[in-house]
Amino acid sequence: MTTAKRTTFADVSRIDEISPGAFTAEADPEWTIGGKPNGGYLLGMLGRAATQSATHQHVLAASAHYLSSPKPGPIHLVTEVLRTGRSASQVRARMSQDENPCVEATFTLGTLAQDSTPQWTDGTPEPGPFAQDDCEPVNGARGVAILDQVDLRIHPDDSGFSRGTPNGSGVLRGWLGLPDGEHFDPISLLYAVDSFPPATMNIAITGWVPTLELTAYVRALPAPGPVRILHKAQLIDDNRVDESCFVWDSRDRLVAQATQLAGIRLNPPE
Amino acid sequence: MTTAKRTTFADVSRIDEISPGAFTAEADPEWTIGGKPNGGYLLGMLGRAATQSATHQHVLAASAHYLSSPKPGPIHLVTEVLRTGRSASQVRARMSQDENPCVEATFTLGTLAQDSTPQWTDGTPEPGPFAQDDCEPVNGARGVAILDQVDLRIHPDDSGFSRGTPNGSGVLRGWLGLPDGEHFDPISLLYAVDSFPPATMNIAITGWVPTLELTAYVRALPAPGPVRILHKAQLIDDNRVDESCFVWDSRDRLVAQATQLAGIRLNPPE
Repeated sequence: MTTAKRTTFADVSRIDEISPGAFTAEADPEWTIGGKPNGGYLLGMLGRAATQSATHQHVLAASAHYLSSPKPGPIHLVTEVLRTGRSASQVRARMSQDENPCVEATFTLGTLAQDSTPQWTDGTPEPGPFAQDDCEPVNGARGVAILDQVDLRIHPDDSGFSRGTPNGSGVLRGWLGLPDGEHFDPISLLYAVDSFPPATMNIAITGWVPTLELTAYVRALPAPGPVRILHKAQLIDDNRVDESCFVWDSRDRLVAQATQLAGIRLNPPE
Repeated sequence: MTTAKRTTFADVSRIDEISPGAFTAEADPEWTIGGKPNGGYLLGMLGRAATQSATHQHVLAASAHYLSSPKPGPIHLVTEVLRTGRSASQVRARMSQDENPCVEATFTLGTLAQDSTPQWTDGTPEPGPFAQDDCEPVNGARGVAILDQVDLRIHPDDSGFSRGTPNGSGVLRGWLGLPDGEHFDPISLLYAVDSFPPATMNIAITGWVPTLELTAYVRALPAPGPVRILHKAQLIDDNRVDESCFVWDSRDRLVAQATQLAGIRLNPPE
């Protein structure tokens, strides 16, 4: 189905510490959309840098502000530890390229229990069960190179947008697998929450939907295997939309969630 | 009902620029919970500093990381403009006291239309209509001084927690008014999204629920009058809870929303 060489997330998000709190990395040309690296992929690299700078090993929360898109190629990351607490630390991380700031994100780090069980839940959106095999693979046509790297599949009821017929729901359900069956971890979950096309594609076909702010929470360590995703738009007002994303692992456990505010231009009503 | 002198939000959140990007302010002793300034109130001050540092006049998004609580008294704020774009700017702001960092927040600023109408919505939680007069005023007993400043009222079906009987819903509905009928604006909406007690109070009576990360989106300019609020918990796992907050103005328009991740210790099941 794909001819592009596949590279694991661990490989393309690798960072090298060159001095305390300073790192170099390479934005991979294949993990891109229209030639620009995916925002969640970049957030994963920042999360790696934050984690290496802190005494706590897991990302619990990340809030990202996208300033300018880097090109594929060398990038630079610097971190600043804001606070080191007993159960949580806060670290700010910035990515730049040729001295232009690209992304700034602040992380809350802590320790995710190896084997926790949800203590209470109510109102988590539940898209209902649907099998990975029943979803439609989406490949890297139209310049979305990253879709030849990962295994992204969309629920058949939600995939009409790709044929020019949005179903009006503002919802995208599906599955995501990493290359070569690679397992998810808290870092690659930062990519997962931003891996799907804009949920607004199922409202109207629009141009670019640029992210203004993205906040992700990692809720539990993911089990091996692909993850099930619900990505949904909530309100479009004043040319901005908020979208929520929920990620369940193969045990059907909510492992990550995110919210983002993005710009959008709907065509004016006729 | 209250004897404490009431001070407007505009007064208690006033900041004075002492040099470009540097401000002084006073954390008010009455806008506190257990002697500590409310986190949304502090975020409002940071939003004011960010707005004064940018070319765009309205906060669209704010993500806050709470590092240590300041005491009532003099505080210092510094801002750094991360990017100035055509339709949006990003500004990072930090609050400190006696050189201890207290709160760091990053803001997306832009321009909210004077008269926009929602273009699409689906799935915004809708708590149904309920009148301000039918809700129960909550006053500043038990050290929550701020509740003698603002007019916070809880839906009668949700207020049992204050008498030791949580209803199990994880939901708090109610209304919020500022002192002396002061109108809301994008800055005071940053307080509104963090004004309610933890929604987990309607699950179990617990100790302090410290915010790890809070992200707020301002969606529209609010109409004059009090705001209606829905504050709800979604999932408690591994001693952390995510809570969402939705704020509607007197026209019944969603004007702000927020999500936060907080620490929580439920008693182990008996």
